[in-house]
Amino acid sequence: MSDAGTPPATAVAVIGLGSMGLGMALSLRKAGFAVAGCDLAQPALERLAAAGGRACTTPAEAAEGAGAILTVVVNAAQTSDVLFGRDGAAAVAPAGAVVVSSATMSPGDAEALARRCEDAGLVYLDAPISGGAARAAQGELTVMASGSAAAFARAAAVLDAVAVKVHRLGDRAGVGASMKMVNQLLAGVHIAAACEAITLAGKLGLDLATVYEVITGSAGNSWMFENRVPHVLAGDYAPLSSVEIFVKDLGIVQDMARTERYPAPLAAAALQMYLAAAGAGMGRDDDSSLARVYARLSGVTLPGGA
Amino acid sequence: MSDAGTPPATAVAVIGLGSMGLGMALSLRKAGFAVAGCDLAQPALERLAAAGGRACTTPAEAAEGAGAILTVVVNAAQTSDVLFGRDGAAAVAPAGAVVVSSATMSPGDAEALARRCEDAGLVYLDAPISGGAARAAQGELTVMASGSAAAFARAAAVLDAVAVKVHRLGDRAGVGASMKMVNQLLAGVHIAAACEAITLAGKLGLDLATVYEVITGSAGNSWMFENRVPHVLAGDYAPLSSVEIFVKDLGIVQDMARTERYPAPLAAAALQMYLAAAGAGMGRDDDSSLARVYARLSGVTLPGGA
Repeated sequence: MSDAGTPPATAVAVIGLGSMGLGMALSLRKAGFAVAGCDLAQPALERLAAAGGRACTTPAEAAEGAGAILTVVVNAAQTSDVLFGRDGAAAVAPAGAVVVSSATMSPGDAEALARRCEDAGLVYLDAPISGGAARAAQGELTVMASGSAAAFARAAAVLDAVAVKVHRLGDRAGVGASMKMVNQLLAGVHIAAACEAITLAGKLGLDLATVYEVITGSAGNSWMFENRVPHVLAGDYAPLSSVEIFVKDLGIVQDMARTERYPAPLAAAALQMYLAAAGAGMGRDDDSSLARVYARLSGVTLPGGA
Repeated sequence: MSDAGTPPATAVAVIGLGSMGLGMALSLRKAGFAVAGCDLAQPALERLAAAGGRACTTPAEAAEGAGAILTVVVNAAQTSDVLFGRDGAAAVAPAGAVVVSSATMSPGDAEALARRCEDAGLVYLDAPISGGAARAAQGELTVMASGSAAAFARAAAVLDAVAVKVHRLGDRAGVGASMKMVNQLLAGVHIAAACEAITLAGKLGLDLATVYEVITGSAGNSWMFENRVPHVLAGDYAPLSSVEIFVKDLGIVQDMARTERYPAPLAAAALQMYLAAAGAGMGRDDDSSLARVYARLSGVTLPGGA
């Protein structure tokens, strides 16, 4: 941390320019922020530069002079690394800058990161996000946030630019992370259930487009059934959200549940199916690939020949 | 079967006056049908009589002169019994009467019942229903139907009176049953997942009303989460739909899946939780009671002290 004084609220660093982070960075540019972005992938840096952003190769470079540092990486370990590792952002960030931490992680990890940021003179907002790549690009994410009043105040304009809805869930780190994990438990189970059901329908000889029409109008519907089953009907497993995301997120749910001595048999069964899909070579494919696993295990032919 | 000739389309027998069957019988009365109803429970018979229906003590008595016979009992075995057992409806039903079979059952059972009805000179409509007791009372059920053109034609006015939506799924019995089982797999898994998630939220110290607000607006939402979690928030487990219903329906899913050599780990895990709830003495309580099972297994206190 430098002693450069109060950071300008209009300069933001976005660490991690995957589909979510890049969308957030571009939304911030549209809203008039000076945006410095950091990623290992050159195409993402070029897209940011084309939108008038500053392309950086290290978190430290991006964090120089930034009033807010958004970490949009894979997990707690990567978040810790980009903040406190070699060329990390925390060492150079202006005093009092807010870290907006959006990676999915356990509440315990969020609390530990918050303490470390506070020790470094930064404020921390536990701010996991929901909504997917398309809504990230439109600045229409949902944020499940918790943290101090100071953290919310310093992040307010940034959150306005990237989100359509900010849930203020509490005054300490960990609450946002907990809420996100509850959502991910449901999302992960519902995708697996959707794939289990639509492939069983195939096994029973039902017309799958009719199944989609009937179920989306019935009590068996879920947000995920409605959103993911069209991928199966189209036979298109190009990744919008990958199998590996839920290997990770249901893994965190399982670790949390084990720590809490909480039995979670639905989440456990779903995780096994994501592991099977990843083990069968579909880890980078769309998470609706679980339908292909069920199909292989039962001799069903799905649309597209899967 | 008698030889009384073409049955009048305006006389209907409803066998089974539980929450669904009674609602259907009363909707038929409102639509001007002559309705004869049969049940073991005296209060249901009295409600039907008060609405101008004919209260009967045997299926045979109800089926006399009926152009349509609705079987709204628990499963395939009961359906077979009320049609072909002692004092069964089939022996006295007018030739060509349509059996509208609404119990949840496997497609194999539906096919077998259809054959037996046809052998007895009746036509059979595989017609499982969805929507719950409230919509049954309003004549606004969803019907997932399959059967011959003759069966649909003879049942048309009856279906109009009880349903807001009739899915015509095919020209043979079994397709409707298959669709219903796919829906029940999803519904059963989603209730269990909702209970697993909301009780985990309690374990993590989250405010449960806030969890409900956030999740119902997020990708983790399901029709069942939205519908059942309010029971948990209110601590009210009075049965709208009981645990035993899903012990039965996920049991059928498991039997079907085993027959088809189809692995269904999500449905299997969910069934274990319904069995645990029933085994713990909650079989007649609302299916949201699974939250109380999770709470007992993890030391969580839910609203209402459960």
